[in-house]
Amino acid sequence: MKKITVGVIGAGRIGQLHANNLLRSDVYELKILADVYTDHLKETNFAKNIQNITNDVEVIFEDPDIDAVFICSSTDTHVDYIKRAARCNKHVFCEKPISLDVVLTKEALKVVHQCGVKLQVGFNRRFDKHFRSVRKLIQEDKIGKLHVVKITSRDPQIPPESYIKRSGGMFRDMTIHDFDMVRYLTGSEVAEVHVKAANLIDPVFSKYDDVDTAIITLILHNGAMAVIDSSRQAVYGYDQRIEVFGSNGAIEVDNEVETNIKVSTKNSISINHPKLFFLERYRDTYIAEINEFAHVIDNKAELSCSGEDSYQAELLAMAAYKSWKENRTISMSEILEVYT
Amino acid sequence: MKKITVGVIGAGRIGQLHANNLLRSDVYELKILADVYTDHLKETNFAKNIQNITNDVEVIFEDPDIDAVFICSSTDTHVDYIKRAARCNKHVFCEKPISLDVVLTKEALKVVHQCGVKLQVGFNRRFDKHFRSVRKLIQEDKIGKLHVVKITSRDPQIPPESYIKRSGGMFRDMTIHDFDMVRYLTGSEVAEVHVKAANLIDPVFSKYDDVDTAIITLILHNGAMAVIDSSRQAVYGYDQRIEVFGSNGAIEVDNEVETNIKVSTKNSISINHPKLFFLERYRDTYIAEINEFAHVIDNKAELSCSGEDSYQAELLAMAAYKSWKENRTISMSEILEVYT
Amino acid sequence: MKKITVGVIGAGRIGQLHANNLLRSDVYELKILADVYTDHLKETNFAKNIQNITNDVEVIFEDPDIDAVFICSSTDTHVDYIKRAARCNKHVFCEKPISLDVVLTKEALKVVHQCGVKLQVGFNRRFDKHFRSVRKLIQEDKIGKLHVVKITSRDPQIPPESYIKRSGGMFRDMTIHDFDMVRYLTGSEVAEVHVKAANLIDPVFSKYDDVDTAIITLILHNGAMAVIDSSRQAVYGYDQRIEVFGSNGAIEVDNEVETNIKVSTKNSISINHPKLFFLERYRDTYIAEINEFAHVIDNKAELSCSGEDSYQAELLAMAAYKSWKENRTISMSEILEVYT
Amino acid sequence: MKKITVGVIGAGRIGQLHANNLLRSDVYELKILADVYTDHLKETNFAKNIQNITNDVEVIFEDPDIDAVFICSSTDTHVDYIKRAARCNKHVFCEKPISLDVVLTKEALKVVHQCGVKLQVGFNRRFDKHFRSVRKLIQEDKIGKLHVVKITSRDPQIPPESYIKRSGGMFRDMTIHDFDMVRYLTGSEVAEVHVKAANLIDPVFSKYDDVDTAIITLILHNGAMAVIDSSRQAVYGYDQRIEVFGSNGAIEVDNEVETNIKVSTKNSISINHPKLFFLERYRDTYIAEINEFAHVIDNKAELSCSGEDSYQAELLAMAAYKSWKENRTISMSEILEVYT
Repeated sequence: MKKITVGVIGAGRIGQLHANNLLRSDVYELKILADVYTDHLKETNFAKNIQNITNDVEVIFEDPDIDAVFICSSTDTHVDYIKRAARCNKHVFCEKPISLDVVLTKEALKVVHQCGVKLQVGFNRRFDKHFRSVRKLIQEDKIGKLHVVKITSRDPQIPPESYIKRSGGMFRDMTIHDFDMVRYLTGSEVAEVHVKAANLIDPVFSKYDDVDTAIITLILHNGAMAVIDSSRQAVYGYDQRIEVFGSNGAIEVDNEVETNIKVSTKNSISINHPKLFFLERYRDTYIAEINEFAHVIDNKAELSCSGEDSYQAELLAMAAYKSWKENRTISMSEILEVYT
Repeated sequence: MKKITVGVIGAGRIGQLHANNLLRSDVYELKILADVYTDHLKETNFAKNIQNITNDVEVIFEDPDIDAVFICSSTDTHVDYIKRAARCNKHVFCEKPISLDVVLTKEALKVVHQCGVKLQVGFNRRFDKHFRSVRKLIQEDKIGKLHVVKITSRDPQIPPESYIKRSGGMFRDMTIHDFDMVRYLTGSEVAEVHVKAANLIDPVFSKYDDVDTAIITLILHNGAMAVIDSSRQAVYGYDQRIEVFGSNGAIEVDNEVETNIKVSTKNSISINHPKLFFLERYRDTYIAEINEFAHVIDNKAELSCSGEDSYQAELLAMAAYKSWKENRTISMSEILEVYT
Repeated sequence: MKKITVGVIGAGRIGQLHANNLLRSDVYELKILADVYTDHLKETNFAKNIQNITNDVEVIFEDPDIDAVFICSSTDTHVDYIKRAARCNKHVFCEKPISLDVVLTKEALKVVHQCGVKLQVGFNRRFDKHFRSVRKLIQEDKIGKLHVVKITSRDPQIPPESYIKRSGGMFRDMTIHDFDMVRYLTGSEVAEVHVKAANLIDPVFSKYDDVDTAIITLILHNGAMAVIDSSRQAVYGYDQRIEVFGSNGAIEVDNEVETNIKVSTKNSISINHPKLFFLERYRDTYIAEINEFAHVIDNKAELSCSGEDSYQAELLAMAAYKSWKENRTISMSEILEVYT
Repeated sequence: MKKITVGVIGAGRIGQLHANNLLRSDVYELKILADVYTDHLKETNFAKNIQNITNDVEVIFEDPDIDAVFICSSTDTHVDYIKRAARCNKHVFCEKPISLDVVLTKEALKVVHQCGVKLQVGFNRRFDKHFRSVRKLIQEDKIGKLHVVKITSRDPQIPPESYIKRSGGMFRDMTIHDFDMVRYLTGSEVAEVHVKAANLIDPVFSKYDDVDTAIITLILHNGAMAVIDSSRQAVYGYDQRIEVFGSNGAIEVDNEVETNIKVSTKNSISINHPKLFFLERYRDTYIAEINEFAHVIDNKAELSCSGEDSYQAELLAMAAYKSWKENRTISMSEILEVYT
């Protein structure tokens, strides 16, 4: 079986993560890594394993061997690279979100569609074994008709100011994963979004018209409700729990911990902290998503995380922002009227 | 030490519960049990242990030996009995809520105040050892500044239609405990109330302009947020969990289970269901609250669940109803303007 | 229904515990409490609730109203009091063990049999809801043929030297409960006993030819094995866990904890300690055992913890001691040859 | 940095496992895979990734490029291959145990020593993150002086008869891991071994003078005790738990489960089964042990699982067998007198 030849755009944290997983994969051949900045890679073991490292992204697009492009550069470059790749007839794996502007996202999707290439977006949590299992149990009607989905989503620490500044805000940067998870688990679109949010952790967020703590309530088309409780900083660790509640029962997913150790002393009974952050907690999902992307390219699997999925999550993030600013419930039909 | 002589009004489930606890107590003497209907007590062991069972409530008020009255009759009788007891110079323990009409509640509190008697309200969950411990840890600054309080409050099964009809609705009947819990745990009043609610379990609720499923978001005066997720029916049992999250950590209270048994077989690894319902789950709280009431009467303890607490919880229930009906956030100042 | 009139012998910790439970019971009337020493009871609330407190035990035996006697005095007095009570035609509830000398125990049982009274022994753990449930599940064949029973039995702290001195040693004082539990859960007698034990905690035990740490392996008549791991001091609290393992599965009983609280901070994720000690952990069993004793007296229930049960546990404790001293496996047939 | 060039002997389950991990490693180059039988590899993806697959083991020994040999063939071939490799000046990673005959093991170790090569043995559980953490906590004196080590070690199902026949018996095939774990965790040698064992699961074991269920008690040189409870078949899954108990506390390691999901319905509250078997449960340890072996070869790390460790575990397995057959405690000094 011929391997899928790929180029990776972006040599930052997430680009390196994907590049490493591609190098270890049996089905991919990583031919080119491109980034404007590659100085930080010099003399690294990582760089030694890659055939071609370049500062010129065009090299990837112009190489006829390249079957697919992994777009792991900054969010503001995604749309252009998606279009360029599609027009060069290359499949695309793009990190989430596609963009911070749903109009541009829509345009990119149109080009992808016209060119007939595959586009998978990196909502990696869809590939988590725990959440997959929850979805499967829901689909198998284990808990009956869905009533409530609850997501706890807390980062272990606030990001640096430089990140906050360009993040697009809590809803588009962080909660977007949770919006996607609600859609993924329930198979239902959202009808209404209501947000209560505040800046409780650090004043830096207010500086950029951003929040750090939010309670988001969603009404779904199927009648169920969802509540997302999100924070930029849980000092005890990355808190990623999900509950689904229905007419015949409930399913809870607890955090993953580093070791299953309980230490009992006179002063305390201690168990382990949750895994540190997303690279540790969701390590396996990054492998699973590229494995599935290979199957999608080979027409052996349906896309389970499409450009449309990203678009919908982006619309929800936009509605959330609007709900927060206007302190009212936003109907998704109101948003869709404007943007579709 | 002289025992406190009491009369109990109401011979239903909760009246019998209190009567039994009073009979077993070292500090109370239960002299009279009064209810319009007492036929169901005939020939019961319960009745044999009580000196005087009567259909005439006045017997209690007129008996000079009676130090305190336990009002366990239907909600619509509370206000009259509280006033009557207070005017007879008897202390009052009244089941929650004081009434379904905050104006009447206010009047009852005024009479209590004028007569100088003590009034304790039966928000028994304040006496739960788990929740007490959470409150203590918050007060000891274990988790820093409060950011989010989360309450899961689900009954094991829907009540009979006759009960629903007269219940005052989900917010005043069921969620009122959770409103009180938020105030109890945080020591803060509520500034805003937002409700999303639906009738997902049984159409009977719609018949009485009522809901069975709700997500309630509260903004507190201290800046923290609270979210209450409530359902009239969790088929797996009475689900009563609380989480508090703050700048330095989080505290979770899990359900109590009947036995700590794990059964592992080829087909399943099973643990126990939560305790059946409130009589089982909160059994000890009913004893603790009357023990504290005795101390309150003897001026050895401050009231930890006053008439004012009930009044505030009733206002919140009213705001919740209003938020649901008008699909908007209700500011408590808006409510208070009208009712104070 | 006529109440059962009882006298309690012994006003120490366990005597007071039973007396208090008898006072709160609907089916017993506690008429007399007798102990050589009663000075410590003066002016206590406890004493005020008891009709007759005396230093003369004979008052109990000679009172024709007394239906049953609770023997809660020191172990060396049990046999005489059992015989005396039986000959006065009174039923007996006796604390465990009946004696430190199996020959004397046998004699006491003979007198009880001759007089036709009921004798229940205070192996209270048989009445624990968790362990009862395990036994029921075994009997219902939930885990198939039994292979291994595992008991972890650790006290929270070593007793005072005065207690160690007269305790009869670890096996007769502490492990005897676990021997009884093995018989109770499995319904099988023991064929062989092997002990490895040591004095690891405090040299005071060696002073009295005693140990503080033991691993005891039992072979049962039904082919299963049991292992008891016991310690006089677990600094993190009273550790009382049981596992049973069979051809179709396993059952585990975890400790009871004071509150179901988890506290998460940067430094630790903490859960609660086990309940303090036996008075807290087994509180409900003391009530359950006297309730059943009432049913036994009224011929409504079979004895579920008989004198014969105590005798068998005492034989096992003796075999354990012998196994430790001789560093070899002791066959129970070897013991039974001598003592029956 | 030059990669370590290796040959793997044995193309069965464990040989393939190591070969796959070597192929994915950055520090090893797998040059040759040798086994008498290689037909089953034909046309497999696995085989395509290996440069040289041969039926002639000598090819490995004679290749001057080969730095180290992985011996994954049947146990009866280990000793010869170890000697041959050592004499060819190649380092050796050998699967456990070295042999079923401690005299031969001793001889192999002597040759390894004379030739000055490194020998690491595959007691992979030493590389488990949970157990490593327990050992570290013990070494950091977290629980004070060790009193008791408890290991639960149960396989999910009995092996095929062909395997049982050549396994060397339960103690040398299965419990040997647990003997090694006791030494690893405590850093202490064993002084005495006592075994109670039985054939409770399937009569096939008796056919080969073997058992399927055992309770093994060890006395350590440091005064602590250990108890290993082992079974060839736990129908609910691979049960691998460890507890250590000391003067200042206790540490428990629970099983790893596939997903952290709790499903609550009317009929049950279910959690996940333990991971299936050793390939799943200990997946990461196989990677960790070869990573450490690379460091050992490069003199960057001390051997943490040496030939001597295997020898000691083999002696313990022999003592266990003897204890079972003779139904008595075996002193290790008695064994050592004969075999050293």
